[in-house]
Amino acid sequence: MKTGYLGPVGTFSQQAALYFAKKEETHPFSSITDVLKAVEEGLVEQGVVPLENSIEGTVNATMDGLIFDSKLFIHAELPLPVTHCLMVRHENLGKNITRILSHPQALGQCRKYLESNYRDIETVAVSSTAEAARLAAQTSECYAAICTSLAASLYGLEIIDTGIEDCKENYTHFLLVSAKDSSQPKAGYKVTLAFATANTPGALFKTLNIFSIWDLNMTKILSRPMKTRTEALAGEYVFYIDIEGFESPRDVEEALLIAKRKSSFFKPLGSYKVLEFKS
Amino acid sequence: MKTGYLGPVGTFSQQAALYFAKKEETHPFSSITDVLKAVEEGLVEQGVVPLENSIEGTVNATMDGLIFDSKLFIHAELPLPVTHCLMVRHENLGKNITRILSHPQALGQCRKYLESNYRDIETVAVSSTAEAARLAAQTSECYAAICTSLAASLYGLEIIDTGIEDCKENYTHFLLVSAKDSSQPKAGYKVTLAFATANTPGALFKTLNIFSIWDLNMTKILSRPMKTRTEALAGEYVFYIDIEGFESPRDVEEALLIAKRKSSFFKPLGSYKVLEFKS
Repeated sequence: MKTGYLGPVGTFSQQAALYFAKKEETHPFSSITDVLKAVEEGLVEQGVVPLENSIEGTVNATMDGLIFDSKLFIHAELPLPVTHCLMVRHENLGKNITRILSHPQALGQCRKYLESNYRDIETVAVSSTAEAARLAAQTSECYAAICTSLAASLYGLEIIDTGIEDCKENYTHFLLVSAKDSSQPKAGYKVTLAFATANTPGALFKTLNIFSIWDLNMTKILSRPMKTRTEALAGEYVFYIDIEGFESPRDVEEALLIAKRKSSFFKPLGSYKVLEFKS
Repeated sequence: MKTGYLGPVGTFSQQAALYFAKKEETHPFSSITDVLKAVEEGLVEQGVVPLENSIEGTVNATMDGLIFDSKLFIHAELPLPVTHCLMVRHENLGKNITRILSHPQALGQCRKYLESNYRDIETVAVSSTAEAARLAAQTSECYAAICTSLAASLYGLEIIDTGIEDCKENYTHFLLVSAKDSSQPKAGYKVTLAFATANTPGALFKTLNIFSIWDLNMTKILSRPMKTRTEALAGEYVFYIDIEGFESPRDVEEALLIAKRKSSFFKPLGSYKVLEFKS
């Protein structure tokens, strides 16, 4: 199935996309907004976008896109373990590295490793980890890139070291989205929704009270200001919420029905499985 | 006062830092973590970090840094209007632009302008808006950069067009942080805190109930998983919360005291003013 993802090729986003589609079916786009737009317009059948940003992209672009700018639904969540590798051109194996290139956040995540092993080597921040690999592959200088193992094979680089990140429990969460409605709650699935309440004391509390009555467990809650979006809802807040671990889809349906009646804005974003990544 | 910010020079972060310190007192660091660490270790007296990421940086790095990795407090919030300019080298004024460089999110934010005015010109994503300016200034090619007006003067570029972003109500929110305790609530100030609850139905609801009893208005709530942080708190969630608009600091103190007793983790992050940016 034609699948859009946040490019360039060789990023973690492509690794996530390859979980849902064959390589020849994956298409890179230059921003999260572009991925969502491509799905919306039918250029691709589904899209893979990062929700929890560890490396590239930003959670706000995905969340705001889903809440405000698209009519897409979530069909799966994929937590992708973030593993950084240090790589150089084959000709540079064994030589002294003169510069280390990567995305600023990836450099930050490998700080301890870099301080222990390459203390005096200049680090250079570039726009993505894949861009770092591309640059290291193009130059005749002995530059190293910190990137995914996928990028090593794409750009013909040799991996010197792997798993060089400080925190081994580092995941980026990706969402699979498409235009197909997935809002019907299912047992064992996660439910995501967005709703707005007035900016008054206790307004959010009243809606959460509804979830509490039905014993629903919220595992994520994020507020987004609406003021920049629509005049009518200026001063209101939108909440992006995950509900998990329920046994009765009917409980969720009933709770959401009441929550909808108590909200000035309400949008179900899907009921879907959280997958386990197998490399 | 010596003030650290997320570099390189010419970014929005430096514009924010210049609100709190003279230019010669501002020092760029290569990541949000580095800024916080520098304040923590006393290399600089205060730091300016983005909380709501519109362009550079990520909200998670700032939030997690404040919640988990530092003992710093928030002393002010500065919403900085994001205004993008298109700029070229003086010698290239009037010539045909061959490439437009910027941070991927800045390119995204100027999409409509670019489609109307530079439809067939290649856009190139680089690691920061300031880096785009630096590159445009260095090459003899007719490259344009999308960047702050500050970068234009820093890199000696000429501004062709200003306010080219699609959405005119676009702000990046910066926090001023230092080691000085600012946790005492003050009337007219915002209060930010982090706390953890068990991952059970209604756990968050019970804590929010406390705020509701004291009629406190939450204007932001974000959940962060704790599992990657400490074994003891695996499976728990940390909430980052803003409370605003209260008249009685004592109400806040009392509510926070009870909330603290009901939480497995509790950290006041400061009571501070939300400033208005004057350019």
